[in-house]
Amino acid sequence: MKAIGVLTSGGDAPGMNAAIRAVVRAGLARKVKIFGIMRGFSGLLNDEVREMSHRSVSNILGQGGTVLKTSRCSDFMTEDGQRRGAEILKRHGIEGLVLIGGDGTYRGAAALSRTWGIACIGVPGTIDNDLNGTDRTIGSDTAIETALDAIDKIKDTVNSMERVFVVEVMGRNCGYIALKAALAGGAEQVLIPEVTFDMSCLCGEITEGYIRGKASWIIIVAEGAIPAHELASRITGDTDLETRVVVLGHVQRGGRPTAEDRILGGRLGAAAVDLLIKGYSGQAVGMKCDRVHVVDLEEAVKPYRLDTEEDLALIKILT
Amino acid sequence: MKAIGVLTSGGDAPGMNAAIRAVVRAGLARKVKIFGIMRGFSGLLNDEVREMSHRSVSNILGQGGTVLKTSRCSDFMTEDGQRRGAEILKRHGIEGLVLIGGDGTYRGAAALSRTWGIACIGVPGTIDNDLNGTDRTIGSDTAIETALDAIDKIKDTVNSMERVFVVEVMGRNCGYIALKAALAGGAEQVLIPEVTFDMSCLCGEITEGYIRGKASWIIIVAEGAIPAHELASRITGDTDLETRVVVLGHVQRGGRPTAEDRILGGRLGAAAVDLLIKGYSGQAVGMKCDRVHVVDLEEAVKPYRLDTEEDLALIKILT
Amino acid sequence: MKAIGVLTSGGDAPGMNAAIRAVVRAGLARKVKIFGIMRGFSGLLNDEVREMSHRSVSNILGQGGTVLKTSRCSDFMTEDGQRRGAEILKRHGIEGLVLIGGDGTYRGAAALSRTWGIACIGVPGTIDNDLNGTDRTIGSDTAIETALDAIDKIKDTVNSMERVFVVEVMGRNCGYIALKAALAGGAEQVLIPEVTFDMSCLCGEITEGYIRGKASWIIIVAEGAIPAHELASRITGDTDLETRVVVLGHVQRGGRPTAEDRILGGRLGAAAVDLLIKGYSGQAVGMKCDRVHVVDLEEAVKPYRLDTEEDLALIKILT
Amino acid sequence: MKAIGVLTSGGDAPGMNAAIRAVVRAGLARKVKIFGIMRGFSGLLNDEVREMSHRSVSNILGQGGTVLKTSRCSDFMTEDGQRRGAEILKRHGIEGLVLIGGDGTYRGAAALSRTWGIACIGVPGTIDNDLNGTDRTIGSDTAIETALDAIDKIKDTVNSMERVFVVEVMGRNCGYIALKAALAGGAEQVLIPEVTFDMSCLCGEITEGYIRGKASWIIIVAEGAIPAHELASRITGDTDLETRVVVLGHVQRGGRPTAEDRILGGRLGAAAVDLLIKGYSGQAVGMKCDRVHVVDLEEAVKPYRLDTEEDLALIKILT
Repeated sequence: MKAIGVLTSGGDAPGMNAAIRAVVRAGLARKVKIFGIMRGFSGLLNDEVREMSHRSVSNILGQGGTVLKTSRCSDFMTEDGQRRGAEILKRHGIEGLVLIGGDGTYRGAAALSRTWGIACIGVPGTIDNDLNGTDRTIGSDTAIETALDAIDKIKDTVNSMERVFVVEVMGRNCGYIALKAALAGGAEQVLIPEVTFDMSCLCGEITEGYIRGKASWIIIVAEGAIPAHELASRITGDTDLETRVVVLGHVQRGGRPTAEDRILGGRLGAAAVDLLIKGYSGQAVGMKCDRVHVVDLEEAVKPYRLDTEEDLALIKILT
Repeated sequence: MKAIGVLTSGGDAPGMNAAIRAVVRAGLARKVKIFGIMRGFSGLLNDEVREMSHRSVSNILGQGGTVLKTSRCSDFMTEDGQRRGAEILKRHGIEGLVLIGGDGTYRGAAALSRTWGIACIGVPGTIDNDLNGTDRTIGSDTAIETALDAIDKIKDTVNSMERVFVVEVMGRNCGYIALKAALAGGAEQVLIPEVTFDMSCLCGEITEGYIRGKASWIIIVAEGAIPAHELASRITGDTDLETRVVVLGHVQRGGRPTAEDRILGGRLGAAAVDLLIKGYSGQAVGMKCDRVHVVDLEEAVKPYRLDTEEDLALIKILT
Repeated sequence: MKAIGVLTSGGDAPGMNAAIRAVVRAGLARKVKIFGIMRGFSGLLNDEVREMSHRSVSNILGQGGTVLKTSRCSDFMTEDGQRRGAEILKRHGIEGLVLIGGDGTYRGAAALSRTWGIACIGVPGTIDNDLNGTDRTIGSDTAIETALDAIDKIKDTVNSMERVFVVEVMGRNCGYIALKAALAGGAEQVLIPEVTFDMSCLCGEITEGYIRGKASWIIIVAEGAIPAHELASRITGDTDLETRVVVLGHVQRGGRPTAEDRILGGRLGAAAVDLLIKGYSGQAVGMKCDRVHVVDLEEAVKPYRLDTEEDLALIKILT
Repeated sequence: MKAIGVLTSGGDAPGMNAAIRAVVRAGLARKVKIFGIMRGFSGLLNDEVREMSHRSVSNILGQGGTVLKTSRCSDFMTEDGQRRGAEILKRHGIEGLVLIGGDGTYRGAAALSRTWGIACIGVPGTIDNDLNGTDRTIGSDTAIETALDAIDKIKDTVNSMERVFVVEVMGRNCGYIALKAALAGGAEQVLIPEVTFDMSCLCGEITEGYIRGKASWIIIVAEGAIPAHELASRITGDTDLETRVVVLGHVQRGGRPTAEDRILGGRLGAAAVDLLIKGYSGQAVGMKCDRVHVVDLEEAVKPYRLDTEEDLALIKILT
């Protein structure tokens, strides 16, 4: 393997820069040329490819986002797009590609490696932690910290004013961030897409609590479960209590990555280069029990099943 | 003066605890008894009054919110409420009262001191910074830092993905937080209640920028100017660009107070006690050019005129 | 089991409060009385024992330190001390004890359970992460974040001024914090007690780097490897480069615990109660591959062997 | 004025980048060419001069340190150095220079403008806040927050373990950071270069406190008052209490600048350009009562007299 390309694709996640840095430096240490591809698949199709040096990735470890920039690209979902992408890569002499992103990225990577002769290794970079074959994805630890910081701040007001608060966190299909942030933040309730909930039951609990003297509630809701504003209106409608809403949105994608996410990025980026050099393709790297773990890209993107039971039980007992 | 009461009222603000601590300890140092009144005027009417010791305020300096809790109380807006409040205070031997809060609090304080014979001193505790007679109110510095932290995090994604972001910050009538956070965060635009804005002009600028290659915009909007969701829909409608929304809400009220807010709380709390002991009443303390400044409560709550010109000009030049 | 006691002992660690909260609330949920013992073994010998309610542990989840306070107690190392401790526990009807701390705490717990008829379960609460039977101890994740935050800040100066910096982090016998912080912070070198290092070789590398134009170095040193000041003098002596020292010290013990440490505290605290109710004694709980794991206390305190190879290799490649 | 240069010199300070950004963009808005001079006077003498565009200063607002890098340069203290520097500037057509730094920088600026015909304006960039003609220097607000964060963390341990802690903060000649951090952090004592202190009296207070049951002390010491290690040994020697030391060092120079420091940098940077265009030279800009203020460079570097009385009195009352 003479040259390896690296790109980030899909939503950005803190720690992606640590993974990019590791790909570049681990590759150069193995005497492989490294090319950075800007703006994900969309930049690839525009031939935004540039050679990277040791210095290109200096001082990026602590930065959120991705220095390679990212995009969501529908063109690459077509056969024609993939063929053109592969041609551009080959023209640069790029035989292997490290793709850092989530399930959309992995699907593109699977196609590229299966049909178009580019060796591809996926690195799990998404705050959602919804990929198989890895305990954690790069970015989820930082996203949880950001959500927790907001919950802690809201608690100051909750304790001072006694109110119902609904905090919407990211998670369209996966309640991971919501669940962990609720557990760590001591929230009274958490609503996630994986578990159906009974609105009248929730409102009943709040009303009962209010009668007993409990007037402060923090309810964490994953965006995919129910929109925060809708939830708040229904609670106010049912309980007659003032309900406030916070929508954290993209704040959760940014910020200095935690040590956890930087180390994960570093280990997985280096492992991806190693796999390419060993001749692997069509795989994703991940971390299982603190060891690097390899799965097929197709396996990695199968519907993810979050284990919610223990955490939900713990929230119930501890709150 | 044998006994002084202290309460917090209205929205909580970081640094209120520093002010409470200062009232308690400065009072005790002057051999005056100090009573804490829980939950603002509402707790006063329920006789939630307790004597405070040096220890009561240990380790609260770094905590957001207010250990005395707070509330918004409509009963106290009536003459009857005020009369009952004054009676309860007198029954405890409380001759002077320090009230930490915003304009609603100051109005209650003015009535109490004018009509019901309780010496009252107001301390400006509100994140909105919308009171006369002081350069800064306790809590606004921390609120700006919180908003800035969110803007910095969003910038990571903006730089990686190139999008239009609308960030709604607090400020129903006053654009102070929005203006300072926009200036410090390098936001492209800021919409505040004090300044009328031309929506089609804003959308025109965004479209022009997009044509020139500028695809990233952060627009800070004070809640009182226009709801973030409405603004976002109109931008998307006009420019066809994806627009994302963040609503920080009560996150801005909480958190560890900054040094600035703690020191301000400390100085103004101590000054309020000093004024009561000297026989003042119906005044508010504030800070002007780093010196304690005293104004009539009625003066303090007159419509506040934020000076926006220099900051808006600077945002225009620097972005 | 009718009553369970809980104490914290040894150096405090962020997340201990999450573990205390979990012990109290999981115990009460199981209809067991819970007693908090203040100031570790030293408070036990002074009979500082008080019953805990659900409310006793409200709003402590986000606080560093331990609300039960802690101490190092030499009296409890004697048979007489242990006997007296056991008597006091029995007098309160306490049959089981959860002890949150490090190896010293575990040794006391082993003696109490072995000889004096108190069922004891250890919970790993120490920033050092030097106990067997668990992947992580409560507090180490937060300590690494604190060290990383300092390294990131120093990097700003290093990049602006080009200097050699020595940053001393905690770790008398164990280089865990140093290793992870160095990897996450992109430090050029890390010195830990587990690995002998060649001073003249280090200084040679610095001098060579300087000649090639590399004038910025961050060296992380665990306190047990070599005192930072000594290291700095020797570098300056050998290389003639200005060398600056930071000693983080106890800053690393404090602060808001990370989500990781709070969740770990919550899960292990609840698991400890569960084990006591099931009749276990003389064990420590821990987390292995994200599952609760149980080992003998004696096993847990055997000399800990940190796996340093992969991290050191990665630091070498990535820097 | 056709071209203006900008440099940073002396110790780096958070917010310097905001000032650089403001100089560049305010200059370009006035149709003046802007040149960045790398590494302060030392880079000037090496002709490290490069033209800056609007884009050169994108995304630097939130970064600590200085993108122009900085140095301490003894060559520039000589007449010959200054002459050569002026020649290089003139060769680039640079008629005016903005110098961001502390008193050393101002002295160089004064010489350049007085003798060598370069119009110079100083911008106060130093964490020490020891310049005349300005209420605050760029960087001091962030440095105080960093010191405060460390104190808050140490408090967690102090409250859990009851110990004496000595925290050394920056300040060779000026106790500003120490004083403000002590006041905001609720430290028991502060030792600063401006005030002589009686060691035996301090130790007496600690001993007396210990007898009364107060076993926790945080003592903030400016590096210029007495080295922390020396102070700790003397306290332990006199009181027999264990005393721990934290030396924050250069951690205080780094980090994301606060909103305060960014806004200060923005306003003063723009003001400096404005003054140069108006024909001023040999002056320093500063902020007095929230308005831009101009003084002679010679005036600005006169011995600074920190007003300590009110703060010290407040610390005494409030602790």
